[in-house]
Amino acid sequence: MKSVLHHVGIVVSSITETAPLFERLLGLDLISDIVVDEVQKVKVAFVDSGSAVPLELIEPLTIDSPVTKFLKNGGGLHHLCYEVDNIEQAVGDLRRQGAIVVCPPVPAAAFSDKKIAFLYMQNKSLIELVEKGNDE
Amino acid sequence: MKSVLHHVGIVVSSITETAPLFERLLGLDLISDIVVDEVQKVKVAFVDSGSAVPLELIEPLTIDSPVTKFLKNGGGLHHLCYEVDNIEQAVGDLRRQGAIVVCPPVPAAAFSDKKIAFLYMQNKSLIELVEKGNDE
Repeated sequence: MKSVLHHVGIVVSSITETAPLFERLLGLDLISDIVVDEVQKVKVAFVDSGSAVPLELIEPLTIDSPVTKFLKNGGGLHHLCYEVDNIEQAVGDLRRQGAIVVCPPVPAAAFSDKKIAFLYMQNKSLIELVEKGNDE
Repeated sequence: MKSVLHHVGIVVSSITETAPLFERLLGLDLISDIVVDEVQKVKVAFVDSGSAVPLELIEPLTIDSPVTKFLKNGGGLHHLCYEVDNIEQAVGDLRRQGAIVVCPPVPAAAFSDKKIAFLYMQNKSLIELVEKGNDE
């Protein structure tokens, strides 16, 4: 399987408070609206990183959001997302090789309902997969 | 200041054990030798991410390495590195804006002795800066 780094996910307590920090300190601007993802129970927005790999700021939407505990432990760098051609096949391949599926493929509001999935690699790194769309 | 995402730093217990995991699971190959950085007390090697932003695998060189404690707490995503035109000026700018300098500019073995620095942003994110060289 060939995958391509798609974005870097960063958990923050407040997108509206953190985005200006990236702009002021690093000259990196917000390049999307804040999108609510009811499935993942998060709000997300993207910051230009000056490269092809944007930063995704992630804020819990609810107290039982999957990122609430991570935020309580300090937040920060959360996951790397990789783009793959066929997400069902990629998740199957990864599972067979010992990765643990945290969230099977579901549509993502932030990516025009393209499917995403979350898995733990054997080194305990959390990764997200996003299926490559026809628009890319 | 305009900065550009340069690489993603990931702390691992063993580069030689972790690199094959990226190759097997994600099709992402090692694209450098393992470089020893005596200043930072780490060994590092780079993995192609399929994008312009490679992944840096970081392994402690010594028991008192700056990443030893992070590894004991689980390791994983450690820092984002941004390339800047003038590192002394960038570190000064960031300090004046409230960032905390963890490591002032020093030469880095992994980048042909180009200068790097480490800082904490106000949201507690650790960032690295690397000075853009004439070869890029």
